[in-house]
Amino acid sequence: MHIDRFSEVSDRYKVIFLDSYGVLINHRGLIPGVVECIARLRAEGKHLRVLTNNAARSAQAASRRLVKYGLPGFPPEEIITSGATTRQFLQQKVRSGKVAYLGTAAAAEYIIGAGLEAIPVAEVDMSRIDDIKAIAFLDDEGYDLNTDVNRVINLLRQSQAPVVVANTDLLYPVTANDVALATGSIARLAEYVLGRQFVKFGKPAMQMFQLGLESVGRELTDVSLSDILMVGDTLHTDILGGNSFGIDTALVLSGNTRRESAATEIQSSGIFPDYVCASIGE
Amino acid sequence: MHIDRFSEVSDRYKVIFLDSYGVLINHRGLIPGVVECIARLRAEGKHLRVLTNNAARSAQAASRRLVKYGLPGFPPEEIITSGATTRQFLQQKVRSGKVAYLGTAAAAEYIIGAGLEAIPVAEVDMSRIDDIKAIAFLDDEGYDLNTDVNRVINLLRQSQAPVVVANTDLLYPVTANDVALATGSIARLAEYVLGRQFVKFGKPAMQMFQLGLESVGRELTDVSLSDILMVGDTLHTDILGGNSFGIDTALVLSGNTRRESAATEIQSSGIFPDYVCASIGE
Amino acid sequence: MHIDRFSEVSDRYKVIFLDSYGVLINHRGLIPGVVECIARLRAEGKHLRVLTNNAARSAQAASRRLVKYGLPGFPPEEIITSGATTRQFLQQKVRSGKVAYLGTAAAAEYIIGAGLEAIPVAEVDMSRIDDIKAIAFLDDEGYDLNTDVNRVINLLRQSQAPVVVANTDLLYPVTANDVALATGSIARLAEYVLGRQFVKFGKPAMQMFQLGLESVGRELTDVSLSDILMVGDTLHTDILGGNSFGIDTALVLSGNTRRESAATEIQSSGIFPDYVCASIGE
Amino acid sequence: MHIDRFSEVSDRYKVIFLDSYGVLINHRGLIPGVVECIARLRAEGKHLRVLTNNAARSAQAASRRLVKYGLPGFPPEEIITSGATTRQFLQQKVRSGKVAYLGTAAAAEYIIGAGLEAIPVAEVDMSRIDDIKAIAFLDDEGYDLNTDVNRVINLLRQSQAPVVVANTDLLYPVTANDVALATGSIARLAEYVLGRQFVKFGKPAMQMFQLGLESVGRELTDVSLSDILMVGDTLHTDILGGNSFGIDTALVLSGNTRRESAATEIQSSGIFPDYVCASIGE
Repeated sequence: MHIDRFSEVSDRYKVIFLDSYGVLINHRGLIPGVVECIARLRAEGKHLRVLTNNAARSAQAASRRLVKYGLPGFPPEEIITSGATTRQFLQQKVRSGKVAYLGTAAAAEYIIGAGLEAIPVAEVDMSRIDDIKAIAFLDDEGYDLNTDVNRVINLLRQSQAPVVVANTDLLYPVTANDVALATGSIARLAEYVLGRQFVKFGKPAMQMFQLGLESVGRELTDVSLSDILMVGDTLHTDILGGNSFGIDTALVLSGNTRRESAATEIQSSGIFPDYVCASIGE
Repeated sequence: MHIDRFSEVSDRYKVIFLDSYGVLINHRGLIPGVVECIARLRAEGKHLRVLTNNAARSAQAASRRLVKYGLPGFPPEEIITSGATTRQFLQQKVRSGKVAYLGTAAAAEYIIGAGLEAIPVAEVDMSRIDDIKAIAFLDDEGYDLNTDVNRVINLLRQSQAPVVVANTDLLYPVTANDVALATGSIARLAEYVLGRQFVKFGKPAMQMFQLGLESVGRELTDVSLSDILMVGDTLHTDILGGNSFGIDTALVLSGNTRRESAATEIQSSGIFPDYVCASIGE
Repeated sequence: MHIDRFSEVSDRYKVIFLDSYGVLINHRGLIPGVVECIARLRAEGKHLRVLTNNAARSAQAASRRLVKYGLPGFPPEEIITSGATTRQFLQQKVRSGKVAYLGTAAAAEYIIGAGLEAIPVAEVDMSRIDDIKAIAFLDDEGYDLNTDVNRVINLLRQSQAPVVVANTDLLYPVTANDVALATGSIARLAEYVLGRQFVKFGKPAMQMFQLGLESVGRELTDVSLSDILMVGDTLHTDILGGNSFGIDTALVLSGNTRRESAATEIQSSGIFPDYVCASIGE
Repeated sequence: MHIDRFSEVSDRYKVIFLDSYGVLINHRGLIPGVVECIARLRAEGKHLRVLTNNAARSAQAASRRLVKYGLPGFPPEEIITSGATTRQFLQQKVRSGKVAYLGTAAAAEYIIGAGLEAIPVAEVDMSRIDDIKAIAFLDDEGYDLNTDVNRVINLLRQSQAPVVVANTDLLYPVTANDVALATGSIARLAEYVLGRQFVKFGKPAMQMFQLGLESVGRELTDVSLSDILMVGDTLHTDILGGNSFGIDTALVLSGNTRRESAATEIQSSGIFPDYVCASIGE
């Protein structure tokens, strides 16, 4: 497996889409060299967007979090969250009424931002479910698995409202060794036991890439897909999504995919990045 | 769809395997006519076995429960639980040491009965997991979904011990309308997020049918598979399992499968029972 | 299940996306009332697009075929095929070189139209596969299953080129009763035996909806998703895709989904159209 | 990964179940040291059985084939084929009438041996399918993929007969580098496009292990599962099946699983053999 230097790869593109966790930061904090890399890309006039599978915080909060980690200078307008694509869907398809959700109050802002009323699954009146115009799997926390998962399954069995999953990640890291179930797992479980398919946002789905393209299109005329590079640490989300959208992709080894198993994982998944780099900071 | 009378169907067989929930009892209690049916079958010299996907109670407890519902006369020796096939597996394949489990203390009796030490997942010392010789998904209750599911997933990520699922049912009825997640759902979720396959007991897996056959073989010499009828209310467990084991099958409409959708479900699943009866009591 | 009149439904939208087979035509020919319906929609100033999962013929050929069936007046610019989204992908992501394909010579025009060289899988030199820059599952005919399926599987095992599936339909109707394997089935089989995931075009994937939106955007400024209705006869492609894209959907019962089983299929799949109509012609 | 010497492993068991391809022979012929190993095991009084996923030849033909490869002394009674478990099923569950099959005339002997009439799918009269009492996927050859796969799918859509798959292997090796679709792939494809589940024979399913146990039981009284070792080269069939049946398992690296990727495959599949050996001959 050939390892490319990221600076040589990025030279070939006008627009760089970056995953956040595993590319900019990881469980040890800011990834070494990232501040310098981002500064260099900006100096070269590259257009940057962060595409993050996250419906737990707003673009504003995500921007502040990067500052806290030591990476200033990503304004909210440059951050595309899977929550934002979910909000867009709710706004266009649901338009008015109540949305029952699993997640934190912060995540519910995406529902409220769509002009809808957010109601935690735990507070749904099960005798009046016709009120519920959509059901949303938003965030990994903010609910009680013992009661709320059964509640949402019974709600889903009786409701014909559209169901959206704002982040399809299955697990999230809690320490260097340990993981926890993410809301994507709960949604997947509900799909499986009910034999249904929900509408999913977050990479590898297209909508975030489309939103990123439209956002760049507002500052750069005539942008074509061949001008864009997607940089990510996860084959099944960042690289599969970028490849499917028709843009070039670079896998970095500073997050989910480890150097020693990268070649095997690429080969066995059949998800081939155009480049492999150690990290964007090296 | 032709509906057969159960008494005319049962006439053709020497041995009747019966599912419990949906065939003998359901959420309203004992199914009408069951006491008389069982008495008639015994008077005719049929050999009966109850095959129940259940690792939450012993054959003794299952026998007492039927008495409580008003159906005496099923001794524990005539009841095959998926817990019993799990116990047999642990005895033969694991032999000694600690087994980490999700479930109630009653369910853990199946581990203890195999001569092994039962330890709830919540009490596993995660720094000494080499002690754990097997991991068992036993029962739908007895653990905290908020903490113990993440715990078992982290344990599974680090352990090479065999994993057994004592009951693959995905949901269980809690009222006439509502369901709750069964342990089979939690096991399926763990398989999915980890990309693994566990060893599964309970119908449609073969082991309970095999144990039933061996049990009947102790009182009836030269029993052949064509002497046996499996009676159940669920296509994907009772009927699929019976068909795969090579015995004839009768679907009853007194449980999971409703009369109005039975023909559609049979056709769309492609799981064809040899007979369809309203109930064993009619 | 409430059946809506299509003329009352269409009144609420400025843009109508229509599936072709099952909406405009079916195995008996032109669906009754379609000519009048389309004329009325045009007279009302609706913007129409046909979205068809088809990579076997060009938009020009699809337009001529509708004329032949008795439905003139759909110019090629109003027809979005899954072949067109495939061509766009190949153009942007592959750019130059050879593309190995399964399909007819007519289907290969989508490769050639992307400025690439099309080579049937049967003619690939297996000792020089580095030349192959992409592999495409295009059309249901034009290859020999006995030899070419094994060939493409062996090619896929050795190649790191991107793989595209131009139409994910699994079966296609050959008579009123009989079906045949479509290329989507062959692609799915290859994914399964190799454990890989290919890039897929055709509904329910987003790209055709996006292309439809962009096409309408050239004649109608400020079009919003809530202005658009998707009309189709298949839950898993037309309706799931439309719902996921965030537009309203109408299921018609003039094709794949029959009136007697529609309510059951909607409920069991959990794919809920906003409207159900007998056909666009009634 | 610790590599055990097979002779030290086999010492702990009275009964050895051996896969054929990858354990006794591979694409280069007889695996070095196998003749001596088998002679030693017999001299030590071990009871041997060959368990082979194969419905293309009888136990007699399999025995003769081993002789041809240079391994005499496996009588047909010691060879359990997945065809034999299929025959047993057809005998017990179908009993009389016509069985439509995909496969060679040699494979059809398993149907005829069950006292049934074998009719190739190509020769089924589609207007009289009520005659067809079962449908069998038998062998990798003997039919025309271009016509017979569509034929069997249309037959399956109309028939309620039980469907059996005599060998679930997906691919088979044709040269050192190349593979071809096995009948298990065709069956899997039919299951997928029709949304059905067929009855499957061959490892990892239990029936062959059960037949092996019964066969050994005729020459060795009181055999217990802990007396038996399953030796195989494939994690998903030999090792998963043996583990599920409750017997110990040894993976050999002389076939499908290569030494350099064995540790990764074991870890990622979660299918853990009790031992790993280079081959039975070393």
